[in-house]
Amino acid sequence: MTKAAHAGAIAMWRRVLGEAHVAEDEATLGEYSRTTAPRWTRPCCILYPRSTEDVQAIVRVASQFNVPLYPISRGKNWGYGDACAPGDGYAIIVFNRMNRIIELNRELAYVVIEPGVSQGQLYEYLRAHAPDLWMDATGAGMEASVVGNALERGFGHSRYSDHVLSIGAMEVVLGDGRVVRTGLSHYENAQAAHVYQHGVGPSLQGLFHQSNVGIVTRVTLFLPPKPECFSFFYLTIEDPTGIGGLVEALRPQRMGGWVQSAVHIGNDLRLLSSMIPYPWEAVNEHPPLPPDLRAALRRQQKVGAWNLSGSLTGPTPLVRAQKRALRKALRGVGRVRFINDRTLALGEMLTRWLPIPRLAQRVNLLRPYYDLLKGKSADIFVRGAQWRLRRRPEHDPAHPPDPQEVGCGLLWVSPVLPATGEAAETVVNEMEPIFNRHGFDLPVTFTLAGERTLICVMSIMFDKSLLEETAQAQACYDEALDRLFALGFVPYRASAQSMDVLWSASDTFWDVSRRIKRALDPQEIIAPGRYIPPAADE
Amino acid sequence: MTKAAHAGAIAMWRRVLGEAHVAEDEATLGEYSRTTAPRWTRPCCILYPRSTEDVQAIVRVASQFNVPLYPISRGKNWGYGDACAPGDGYAIIVFNRMNRIIELNRELAYVVIEPGVSQGQLYEYLRAHAPDLWMDATGAGMEASVVGNALERGFGHSRYSDHVLSIGAMEVVLGDGRVVRTGLSHYENAQAAHVYQHGVGPSLQGLFHQSNVGIVTRVTLFLPPKPECFSFFYLTIEDPTGIGGLVEALRPQRMGGWVQSAVHIGNDLRLLSSMIPYPWEAVNEHPPLPPDLRAALRRQQKVGAWNLSGSLTGPTPLVRAQKRALRKALRGVGRVRFINDRTLALGEMLTRWLPIPRLAQRVNLLRPYYDLLKGKSADIFVRGAQWRLRRRPEHDPAHPPDPQEVGCGLLWVSPVLPATGEAAETVVNEMEPIFNRHGFDLPVTFTLAGERTLICVMSIMFDKSLLEETAQAQACYDEALDRLFALGFVPYRASAQSMDVLWSASDTFWDVSRRIKRALDPQEIIAPGRYIPPAADE
Repeated sequence: MTKAAHAGAIAMWRRVLGEAHVAEDEATLGEYSRTTAPRWTRPCCILYPRSTEDVQAIVRVASQFNVPLYPISRGKNWGYGDACAPGDGYAIIVFNRMNRIIELNRELAYVVIEPGVSQGQLYEYLRAHAPDLWMDATGAGMEASVVGNALERGFGHSRYSDHVLSIGAMEVVLGDGRVVRTGLSHYENAQAAHVYQHGVGPSLQGLFHQSNVGIVTRVTLFLPPKPECFSFFYLTIEDPTGIGGLVEALRPQRMGGWVQSAVHIGNDLRLLSSMIPYPWEAVNEHPPLPPDLRAALRRQQKVGAWNLSGSLTGPTPLVRAQKRALRKALRGVGRVRFINDRTLALGEMLTRWLPIPRLAQRVNLLRPYYDLLKGKSADIFVRGAQWRLRRRPEHDPAHPPDPQEVGCGLLWVSPVLPATGEAAETVVNEMEPIFNRHGFDLPVTFTLAGERTLICVMSIMFDKSLLEETAQAQACYDEALDRLFALGFVPYRASAQSMDVLWSASDTFWDVSRRIKRALDPQEIIAPGRYIPPAADE
Repeated sequence: MTKAAHAGAIAMWRRVLGEAHVAEDEATLGEYSRTTAPRWTRPCCILYPRSTEDVQAIVRVASQFNVPLYPISRGKNWGYGDACAPGDGYAIIVFNRMNRIIELNRELAYVVIEPGVSQGQLYEYLRAHAPDLWMDATGAGMEASVVGNALERGFGHSRYSDHVLSIGAMEVVLGDGRVVRTGLSHYENAQAAHVYQHGVGPSLQGLFHQSNVGIVTRVTLFLPPKPECFSFFYLTIEDPTGIGGLVEALRPQRMGGWVQSAVHIGNDLRLLSSMIPYPWEAVNEHPPLPPDLRAALRRQQKVGAWNLSGSLTGPTPLVRAQKRALRKALRGVGRVRFINDRTLALGEMLTRWLPIPRLAQRVNLLRPYYDLLKGKSADIFVRGAQWRLRRRPEHDPAHPPDPQEVGCGLLWVSPVLPATGEAAETVVNEMEPIFNRHGFDLPVTFTLAGERTLICVMSIMFDKSLLEETAQAQACYDEALDRLFALGFVPYRASAQSMDVLWSASDTFWDVSRRIKRALDPQEIIAPGRYIPPAADE
């Protein structure tokens, strides 16, 4: 890759996409060099396609000049490398202009969308055109891409929380510029094209999740129909060692198939990080929080040591029976509480007219979680990334700024566990000392994202303006991942700048992945270094 | 492929597997040349590995002598080519000796099994060692392979009916003899190895479903925990044109997530074919059945024009609420009835002591469906294949012989449809005249196997001892598939001897599949011609 190659490719891209849709000015390149991770990379240019044909043309030019591409959706992959490429000199493809909602089928409850569609856009679209359909949202905020999250195997909170399982079909541009369609959608007139995800013959869909085998330009996404009745449930416990018991109490209900939503369990620190600034004074500028201060903050902010939430949906009499069954199932660990539209509205009305600060606090705390489970993401969750900033930016509390703009540091460590109490306890007990030793607290969530698995997300939040803290964050991340691998807790997702933690040269799995990559993209034009080890590693 | 190559390979296989585990005698070759399909092929030998290492050795020898392999599990792929290879001269690998249940995890509800494990074996194993776990069974009989069915994307009847979604991890031998492990199981100590099916990085699992990219030697299978309460439901309607209404009434309940089992809808002919011999005399030796005779047989055998069944599971109070909700949802189409262990036992007791022939008839009809939904397959469903035999074999009604042994002809035509009444009606209306014109009735089932899809299975049953009828069967099959493709109803599964109906030279999907095949099995040693088009097609 030479400067001449870059210049040649950029000139050609300008010709095929139009001048306005290729950026290489300082400001834009700077924007795509930023990340909440400690390490960043610098692209050679930014490309803004408007159509699948544009993407095909981009790939052909990249091939000709041998310039590596890095497709992102909307660049909001917070905590996993954001919009940054794995290395310098990549041409980043941004899909913000490819944000069409191409098809809506209300009867079979799906949409066909492009990677530029944001959570907020889809939410508003459904409100306007299909009030009988909901969507499954993540806490990544209104601006995050729906497709991007699904391809990274993100998860949300409803019955459709495992996003890759909601993909009905995909359109993908390959390294040679051809388009392949997955499932049954490659049969032009297939009536089940959008709804039967397996297709006939081998299923190629999995190849395009967490990979670099192609550039996804269109996805069919199943939507959960709006249920007759929706009931949010939550439970808090005061015992900091109680996570194991919660998981053990919940697993049989998830595996019994009647608690169908993802169930989310966050610790005190995870909640506090979205609610209050870091109490720098109280810790004498030296994190982590000592246990007594942490307990005092819990009491003050009315959060539990562990905070569990989920939802029950279905016909009204069924939800009533589910509520009783859940109350019974969780009796041993705590008292589960339920909220619905009516009770939440009542609470909000009361707080407007009466001075009940405890109620107001509770309502304000719960509202975003409640909405999230109904498919409405909020930017409030992203606000947690500001926790450790020494100088917090002024902003409307409901609309926090882009974490990158205000110097937030964020690394997510996210192992996948079997859904057992023992596994959850082991992770907390092993990770807390490591985080603390590096000067970090351990904000953590466990999500029963499937019937048998827990996905754990631990946040390393830091202030990027401080070099030493940033270095500590990286050291903490590296040590945490090392220890997790040694314990057999493999991450479910990795950061663009540290994929190599996943690879082992002797593992046939990666060699097979690489052979497939090379069969479909022999020049390794598409996102070299993303999830699949590059040829140079051999 | 020459005779010398065959002889050389066979000699080497004898050395590595042992004399007793390579067969090339007439009787055995004859057994594996049989099929219920019109076209058959003849293998060069049969290989019986005992371990993954044996399979690796088999592949290496095959490579050396360039002899194509055809791995089957237990050879019970009824109606889709059975155990027959796509062409002559293949070495068939039979997995009957690799029938170990390697691991059972009761807490997380899964087993790790080899391809030789049969439905009956797993059922009995669970009864003895894990009475708290059930399995999802198909109607293919006790002898059919669990893994084989899952890899063909078969479906059963419980909440876990979509079998590929229940695969947690796979061990696969590739064309070069190496072993690849999918999901997280390639990380040696991964704690979620068996339960988190997606893994990290690309998911390779789909490549080994309905394909020839590798030989699967081990599978982790999720099991449904035994529910506190199980309620079988059924509903029959008398209107032969009523299928559309049934599908429309059911879809919202499936998509609402609370009717979770597959829902199976069979027509009169499908049920009658398992109950009574074909009424040759009444039709003057000329099928199909005229409408009035068909109606008379329905009345006589107490079956509906359409017969719907499924199950509700969960905590007892929840099932009670589900029953009420289902009754309400189906009110417009008919009266849904429920059976549980108690009522079925009561019915059986009554029929032993009292002469109530109607009750006896109903109990006998329902018992196998009831058991099937609880995970116990029965050979009775395979008996339907004998329907058109002119000379029906004598046998214990509970244990019908292998359909191939008694000359049954059977071809399944199985398109996948969106779950709409219109699609189901179109298929019936289009197919019935084609079947009838070729002298066949149309036994058909529709299964709501997912929330948005219907899988339709139509049976062409014929008497293989009659050349003309066999030719008619093939002609009917070809015409039916042609018409279905024209209408956009693609099969969800194809017969080993007619994969070419799936392929279109201009379709990038098949080219991509072929490139992947070639990257992992350059000599095309494994099952050439199965699902992925062979290189010679280019």
